[in-house]
Amino acid sequence: MNIVLPDGSQKELADGATVADVAASIGAGLAKAALGGKIDGAFADLDTPVKDGASVEIITAKSPEALGIMRHSTAHVMAEAVQLLFPGAQIAFGPQTEDGFFYDFELSRSITPEDFEAIEAKMAEIIKRDEPFVREVVSRDEAEAIFADQRFKLEHIRELPADEEIIIRRHGDFVDLCSGPHMPSAGKIGAFRLMKVAGAYWKGDSDREMLQRIYGTAFFKQKELDEHLHNLEEAEKRDHRKLGRELGIYMMDPMAGVGLPLYLPKGARVIRTMQEWLRRDLYERGYEEVITPHIYNADVWKTSGHYGFYKENMYFFEINEGDDENPRMSEYGVKPMNCPGHVMLYKNELHSYRDLPLRYFEFGTVYRHEMSGVVHGLLRARGFTQDDAHVFCTRDQVVDEVVAILDLVDHIMTTFGFEYSAEISTRPEKSIGTDDMWEHATNSLKEACARHGLDYEINEGDGAFYGPKIDIKVKDAIGRTWQCSTVQVDFNMPERFELTYRTEDNTEERPWMLHRAIFGSIERFLGILIEHYAGALPLWLAPVQVAVLPLADRHNDAAAALAARLKAAGGRVEVYGQNEPMRVKIAKAQSQKIPYMVVLGDKEVENGTVSVRDRHEGDLGAWPAEQLVEKIREAAL
Amino acid sequence: MNIVLPDGSQKELADGATVADVAASIGAGLAKAALGGKIDGAFADLDTPVKDGASVEIITAKSPEALGIMRHSTAHVMAEAVQLLFPGAQIAFGPQTEDGFFYDFELSRSITPEDFEAIEAKMAEIIKRDEPFVREVVSRDEAEAIFADQRFKLEHIRELPADEEIIIRRHGDFVDLCSGPHMPSAGKIGAFRLMKVAGAYWKGDSDREMLQRIYGTAFFKQKELDEHLHNLEEAEKRDHRKLGRELGIYMMDPMAGVGLPLYLPKGARVIRTMQEWLRRDLYERGYEEVITPHIYNADVWKTSGHYGFYKENMYFFEINEGDDENPRMSEYGVKPMNCPGHVMLYKNELHSYRDLPLRYFEFGTVYRHEMSGVVHGLLRARGFTQDDAHVFCTRDQVVDEVVAILDLVDHIMTTFGFEYSAEISTRPEKSIGTDDMWEHATNSLKEACARHGLDYEINEGDGAFYGPKIDIKVKDAIGRTWQCSTVQVDFNMPERFELTYRTEDNTEERPWMLHRAIFGSIERFLGILIEHYAGALPLWLAPVQVAVLPLADRHNDAAAALAARLKAAGGRVEVYGQNEPMRVKIAKAQSQKIPYMVVLGDKEVENGTVSVRDRHEGDLGAWPAEQLVEKIREAAL
Repeated sequence: MNIVLPDGSQKELADGATVADVAASIGAGLAKAALGGKIDGAFADLDTPVKDGASVEIITAKSPEALGIMRHSTAHVMAEAVQLLFPGAQIAFGPQTEDGFFYDFELSRSITPEDFEAIEAKMAEIIKRDEPFVREVVSRDEAEAIFADQRFKLEHIRELPADEEIIIRRHGDFVDLCSGPHMPSAGKIGAFRLMKVAGAYWKGDSDREMLQRIYGTAFFKQKELDEHLHNLEEAEKRDHRKLGRELGIYMMDPMAGVGLPLYLPKGARVIRTMQEWLRRDLYERGYEEVITPHIYNADVWKTSGHYGFYKENMYFFEINEGDDENPRMSEYGVKPMNCPGHVMLYKNELHSYRDLPLRYFEFGTVYRHEMSGVVHGLLRARGFTQDDAHVFCTRDQVVDEVVAILDLVDHIMTTFGFEYSAEISTRPEKSIGTDDMWEHATNSLKEACARHGLDYEINEGDGAFYGPKIDIKVKDAIGRTWQCSTVQVDFNMPERFELTYRTEDNTEERPWMLHRAIFGSIERFLGILIEHYAGALPLWLAPVQVAVLPLADRHNDAAAALAARLKAAGGRVEVYGQNEPMRVKIAKAQSQKIPYMVVLGDKEVENGTVSVRDRHEGDLGAWPAEQLVEKIREAAL
Repeated sequence: MNIVLPDGSQKELADGATVADVAASIGAGLAKAALGGKIDGAFADLDTPVKDGASVEIITAKSPEALGIMRHSTAHVMAEAVQLLFPGAQIAFGPQTEDGFFYDFELSRSITPEDFEAIEAKMAEIIKRDEPFVREVVSRDEAEAIFADQRFKLEHIRELPADEEIIIRRHGDFVDLCSGPHMPSAGKIGAFRLMKVAGAYWKGDSDREMLQRIYGTAFFKQKELDEHLHNLEEAEKRDHRKLGRELGIYMMDPMAGVGLPLYLPKGARVIRTMQEWLRRDLYERGYEEVITPHIYNADVWKTSGHYGFYKENMYFFEINEGDDENPRMSEYGVKPMNCPGHVMLYKNELHSYRDLPLRYFEFGTVYRHEMSGVVHGLLRARGFTQDDAHVFCTRDQVVDEVVAILDLVDHIMTTFGFEYSAEISTRPEKSIGTDDMWEHATNSLKEACARHGLDYEINEGDGAFYGPKIDIKVKDAIGRTWQCSTVQVDFNMPERFELTYRTEDNTEERPWMLHRAIFGSIERFLGILIEHYAGALPLWLAPVQVAVLPLADRHNDAAAALAARLKAAGGRVEVYGQNEPMRVKIAKAQSQKIPYMVVLGDKEVENGTVSVRDRHEGDLGAWPAEQLVEKIREAAL
C-alpha cells in the first residue's frame, strides 16, 4: 500500500496501517509528537486506518489544527470529571470554540465558579492517568445500550440518519458520541482553566431544557495560558464599552433603540479629527468628496440588486408621493451602502478615458440590520459611518489604483502602530463576470500586493459573487486581529447601472469599479483604537490633549490664559478649576487618559513655565509654556 | 362724534362721517392721497362710515398695506376687461398675492400669453376712465339676482352662512362679491403687467371644474414694475437648480426619489467648507459638537411628542428585535429633528448649575416629508442638514445665550452681505407652560434683541405651542427675503424627558432649553447663496478658486507646479490642460464663475509671474506668482 505525504513524496506501508504507523514510518520523533492526522484533508485519529493512495498529514502540537483538537479532548476530560463529581449528570454536547471549549450538562444542582476548583482538580487527576481516547464504531443498538441512561445522547442517536456510522469515544469510564479527532491520550493535554458557567438550551431551542454550559480553555504551555488569561484581563480593562463610558466617548440609550450609539462631545471630537485627518490625505491623493442621501427609492435598490440579495439587512418604509386624497405609495429604503449613490453621481455626466480614474469618497453613515443579540458597542452596531470610496477606472489602471490604496492602508495602519496582514479572496462557485475579468481582477490584486511588498494569503473561492477582494486584518496591542480595510473589485454595479466611458478610440466601454474602505467603519475603528490604546489615544487624536490644573483659585486666571493660548494653537484643553486637592485633580485627569497634565502654581505663573506630567511617563518637570504650546501646535492637523 | 388717530390724538367729526371725511379733516393732501383706511385695525374703504370712539388710520400709497389693496383692485379691473373681451365669461375668485394678483375664469376658449396684450389694453382703457369701486351691502335675494348668470358666484352665495352680510363691489358694468378694501377709483392703479396663465380647480378641488387663472402684478410706479420684472429675470438666471447643474454642485435622479439631492464633488466641497467654517466658530463660542443617529425607536418620538404632532411628516418602519422564529417587531422612525438626541445626551449625565450653559451642536441630516409637488431643488427638499444646536441653561442665562446667538447670526449673515430682520412670535392660543414662563421667555427674547440693537416685529400668537421664538429673515441681492435662522425657546422637551440640573441650593430644577439654527438647512442656505451670488460664490467658499490656464502644451508642467503650490496653500485649483484656444478656456472658467483665471505662457513661466483675470473685474495684469499664492492662503480657513 502506498500513501502520499504533504511534500508529495510516497511511502510504502503494510495493509491496515494507521495514521500512527505513517508517523512512525517517518521517524520516531514524529511518532512521539503525533497528536492525530488528516487523511485526504479530513481529520483522523492516530488509530484510524489509512487506505492505499490516500494523502496523509501528521498533526503535532505545532500544527495550526492541534490546539483545537487538544481543547476538544480537554472538553471530554471535563465532562468525565463532572460525571464523577455529579453522579447521574446528563451530558449534551461539548465542542471546541475559537478560544477554548465548553460542555453542556444537566445536573442535580446549579454549578457556580466555586465548583471550578474541584472540577479542575479532578481533571488534573484524569490527565495524570494519561489514558488513551479510544475510537469505536458501534451499531445503533449498541449505541442505545451504551447511552441507556443518557437521555440527550439517546435522543440524538434516534435522530441520526439510518445510514450514518456511529462513532463513540471512550476515555476511562467516560464514553461519548464523538467522531473526533482527539489526542492519542489525555497526558498530552497542556495547561487548562475553567472560565465561566452559563445557561444554554438543549440544541439551542428555547422550548427545550435549559442546560448548564461550562466554558474552559486550554493551551499546550502554561505560559500560553497565562498570557491568554492576562490578555483577557487586559481586554476587559480595555473594553471600549467601559472606557467609552468613562471617557465620555459615547452612550447608548435603550429608548433610542438597539445598536444606535450617540456620540458625546469627546467622541464627536475624535470622530471629526479622524475624518478631517483622512479627508486631507484623500484630497492630496486625488480623491473627491461627495455627499449622498441616507434614503433612496427602492428602485435604486432594485437596480443595484440589494433589494434582491441584501433586503433582510435593510430597513424599508413607504412614502406617499401623491396626496391624502390620491395616495401613491412608493417604497424607500435606508442605505446600507454608499455605492449606488456614487454610481448615480458617476452616471450624471458623460465620461471620457481622460477623466479616469475617478475617485469618489464619502463619510457615509449607513444602517444595516443586526440581530439585537449580537450588537456589541461600537464594534457591531446597526448604524455606522463608512470611510467609503469608489474608484472608477480603466482595466489597465486597476493595479495602480490598488497599489495606491494599499499605500494608503499602510499609512493609516502604521500611524496607529498596527501590524497588518492581507488575504485575497478569489472567485466563488456562484459568480457573475467572465473568466477573463476574474483573472485580470485577481491577478491585479496579487500584483498590487507584490508591488507593495505585501504578503497575502489566498482564501480560495471566498470572494463576493461580483468580484475578488483584498481584506486587511490588523493586529492590536494585545494580539487580537480585526478585519478593517477592504479593496473589492465590483463587476456588478457598472453592469446594472450601465456605466460607460468613451475610450481613446471613441468607443463606449464599461469602467472598472473598486470599492474600498480603510477604517471600514469609523466608529468601529474608534472602538478598536480605544481597546488598542487602552483609552490613551495618541496626542493628535485625544479628545482632551491638555488638562490645565491650577494649584489654587488664584491661579485660575493664569490657567484660563494658558488654555486660550493652547486653543489658539489648535489644542483641545480642559481647565480643572474646581477647588480640589491637586492629587484629586491629577487622578481625575489621569483616569481620563489626558496626554499632558500641567500644574500652575505661584512659581510657574511667575516664571512663565508649566509643570508637566505625562500620562505614561509621569513628571516631566518644568517647561517654558511655549514648549507645551509648540507640542500642541505640532499635534494639530 | 370723536375718533382716535394713530398718534393718539382725537378728532371731532359729524355723525355719519366716513374714512374719507377723516382724511379730509386732517388735510387736503391726505384726502387726495387716501386709498382706504383701517377702523379699529380692520380694513375699510374710504366710503365706510366710522363710529364714535373708533381708532382710524388712513392708508396712502406709502402705507405697507397699500400695494396689496391696489393689486386687488387691479384684479377686478382685469376681470372686467376679460368679461368685456370674452362675453359670457364665468368669474370665480381673484385675490392679491405676495407679489401680484390673479383671477380665475371659465372661458369659451383657452387663453394664451398672446391674449395678454389685448387684455392689458382693455384694462388701460378702464383705468383711464377712473371710475370708482362702489361698495354695496345687498340681501341674499338681490345677490342671487345680480349674479344670476354667474354660476360660481351663485354657488358661493348659497354656501354662505345665513347671517353673513353680503357685500358687492361695482366698477363700471362689472360687479363682484367682495368685501374689499379697494382703491377709491381705478385711476389710482399704477403700472401693471399680466404674467402668466395656468390651470386651477374651482375652490382648489380636483374633482371640480378646471378654470383658467391669469396672474398679473402691479406697482404704484412704472420704475418699481420694471425693477420687479428685472428681478424676476435675474431670479431665473440665478435659479440655483440651473446654476447647481451648470456648476456641478448637485444632481437629482428620478430613480433616487423625490427631494433627495446628491452632491457632486464641487457641492460637497462647498458644504464641507461651510461646515468647517461654522464649526471652528462654534468651538470658539463654547459649543460642543455631538453626533446622533438618523433613526430611533418610536419610543423616542412618543416621548418627545413628535409621534403625536409630527407623525405625518416622518418616515416610520419596523425592525425585528427578535429572530425569524420569534419575531418581535419594533417601530423606528427616521429623524426629522435632532433635539431628542441632544436631550438624551444631556440626560446621560447628572448636571450641576456649574455645567450650564451647555451648548450642543450637530450638523444633523434630517428627513421630513414634503408633498412631491412642492419640493424645489435645495430650497425645499425631503432631506437636508441642519446646523442645529441646543442650549441648556438656567432661567437667568436665557438672555445672555440669546444675545450670543444673535451675535453669531450677525457674524454669519454680514459675512455673506445679507441684510436681515427679526420677528418675535409670541404665545399662541393653545400652549403649554405657565404664564410666568411665557413672560420670562418672551421678555428675554425682546431684551436680547434690544441689547443687540436689533429691531423686531411681533407676530402676535404665532409662537409654537411650546415656546416663543425669534425668526431671522435675510434679504438677498435681488431683494427677496428668506427665512433662515431661528431661536426657539422650548418648554416641552425638558418636561417630557424630565431633564434636571442641581442648583446651587442643591435642589433639582428643569433647565431651560433653546433650539437654534443659523443657516437653518445648510443645503438650502447654499441654494440661497447660489442665487444671491448668481453662482459666483466668494473666494473662500468657491469650489474652485483658481483656474490655471496654460497657453500651450509646453506650459502644462509649469501649470501643474503652480497648482501644487496653490493647493499647498490650502487652495482649490483646476488646471485647464486641454489643447484648446485660450478664449475657450477663459469662457469655460468664466462660466464656472471661478474667482481667478491665471494664464501661463512663455513670458510668465520665464518671469515667475501669472497673468491674472478676475471673474468680475476682468484682466488684472501680471502678478508675481507668490501674490496669488498669498491671496489663496488668506482665503483658506
